[in-house]
Amino acid sequence: MEPGGASVPAALPYYVAFSQLLGLTVVAVTGAWLGLYRGGIAWDSSLQFNVHPLCMVIGMIFLQGDALLVYRVFRKEAKRTTKILHGLLHVVALIIALLGLVAVFDYHRKKSYPDLYSLHSWCGILVFVLYCVQWLVGFSFFLFPGASFSLRSRYRPQHIFYGATIFLLSVGTALLGLKEALLFKLGTKYSKFEPEGVLANVLGLLLICFGVVVLYILAQADWKRPSQAEEQALSMDFKTLTEGDSPSPQ
Amino acid sequence: MEPGGASVPAALPYYVAFSQLLGLTVVAVTGAWLGLYRGGIAWDSSLQFNVHPLCMVIGMIFLQGDALLVYRVFRKEAKRTTKILHGLLHVVALIIALLGLVAVFDYHRKKSYPDLYSLHSWCGILVFVLYCVQWLVGFSFFLFPGASFSLRSRYRPQHIFYGATIFLLSVGTALLGLKEALLFKLGTKYSKFEPEGVLANVLGLLLICFGVVVLYILAQADWKRPSQAEEQALSMDFKTLTEGDSPSPQ
Repeated sequence: MEPGGASVPAALPYYVAFSQLLGLTVVAVTGAWLGLYRGGIAWDSSLQFNVHPLCMVIGMIFLQGDALLVYRVFRKEAKRTTKILHGLLHVVALIIALLGLVAVFDYHRKKSYPDLYSLHSWCGILVFVLYCVQWLVGFSFFLFPGASFSLRSRYRPQHIFYGATIFLLSVGTALLGLKEALLFKLGTKYSKFEPEGVLANVLGLLLICFGVVVLYILAQADWKRPSQAEEQALSMDFKTLTEGDSPSPQ
Repeated sequence: MEPGGASVPAALPYYVAFSQLLGLTVVAVTGAWLGLYRGGIAWDSSLQFNVHPLCMVIGMIFLQGDALLVYRVFRKEAKRTTKILHGLLHVVALIIALLGLVAVFDYHRKKSYPDLYSLHSWCGILVFVLYCVQWLVGFSFFLFPGASFSLRSRYRPQHIFYGATIFLLSVGTALLGLKEALLFKLGTKYSKFEPEGVLANVLGLLLICFGVVVLYILAQADWKRPSQAEEQALSMDFKTLTEGDSPSPQ
């Protein structure tokens, strides 16, 4: 066993592998649903709508979830490298999600369907705006060189809480969208245990499982990335500097 | 200021008050929705269905959320009193939720509607079963006198994680049910910004806000209930007993 906190917790790799298996299954089942029951995907036709669920699941669920796991998986790399990977994965997720949003608004425009009336759409816009704000604030605190060590330490727990919340809201929004797509098309046939309905219900449960497993990995205090030698030194300096301060609990 | 960890964190009461305001608003808006647009509530008529959303929101959302906050609110009472209150609130929540479940199954039976075909119903049954299991396991570990201190300490983080997860799943299931009720009744009128649709969307956002605020209060490490003198003594004993053990991280 390696000394100190540098060793990888025994169960962590299995949980990470399971999360990836679940995440890829979610993407595959979304593709299968769209391919088998919705005619597949194309930009310039009535199939344009189908770009929306696929892009949102890849961007806002799978890649966003993986971006949250970066600090648990890359434990020994330089902090800066891990940070950049975390930020980059979120950028890729944002671009793919933006493509999914353009697809649905463009489809609605061509069909003269109204926009933004449903709970799914309200939640979706809220989550996407929060996700952009979280990225910008995260970038300016952690990657932009200006922010002080103390400012970063105070903001970090908030960044983690809101990151996990935005991810869970993304999963919830996906469930609402799935339900909407089912009820619009199947209507009362949904209650006849149509194969599409059952497949979509299974997809919903898989989405929930992916969300729970990612949250479980994030919630284990022992699985956090250990601070490295240079960070520990900085942290000690910071402690020494602020010891006289006695910050009041709030 | 009081000595040690006995003082109440300055911001906590405001967050708890805000959570209660949100929780009561959620219950009131659910009542208003059912009263204004669904004909109100009665057991022996076609209004029996309406018992379901009201009971589930009171039991599985408001009371379950409040039961999770008990350890943040009652900080100076004996641990056992706080535990019993936590367990009792969950029992009341379970009974009210059970009434809501009986209402919907009985209504379906009378109308010869099929059961358990939708994603909402699958999630609902899953959450309710998990909630019962969590209660039983929690009771046997923490209130039944048999479990050892070391067993309790090892189970506690799991109990907290699954408790928060079941609560969040309850919120997600409520959103799916709300969406289902809207789409079944409003159909394409939903896209015309009907007052019922807008009110139900607002209710959805309020449910999400309640979930996020409860989760925020639970997630603040500094807001945890401080261990009291006798618990600290026990904990020290336990540490001394197991120091030679060096439990492997997993």
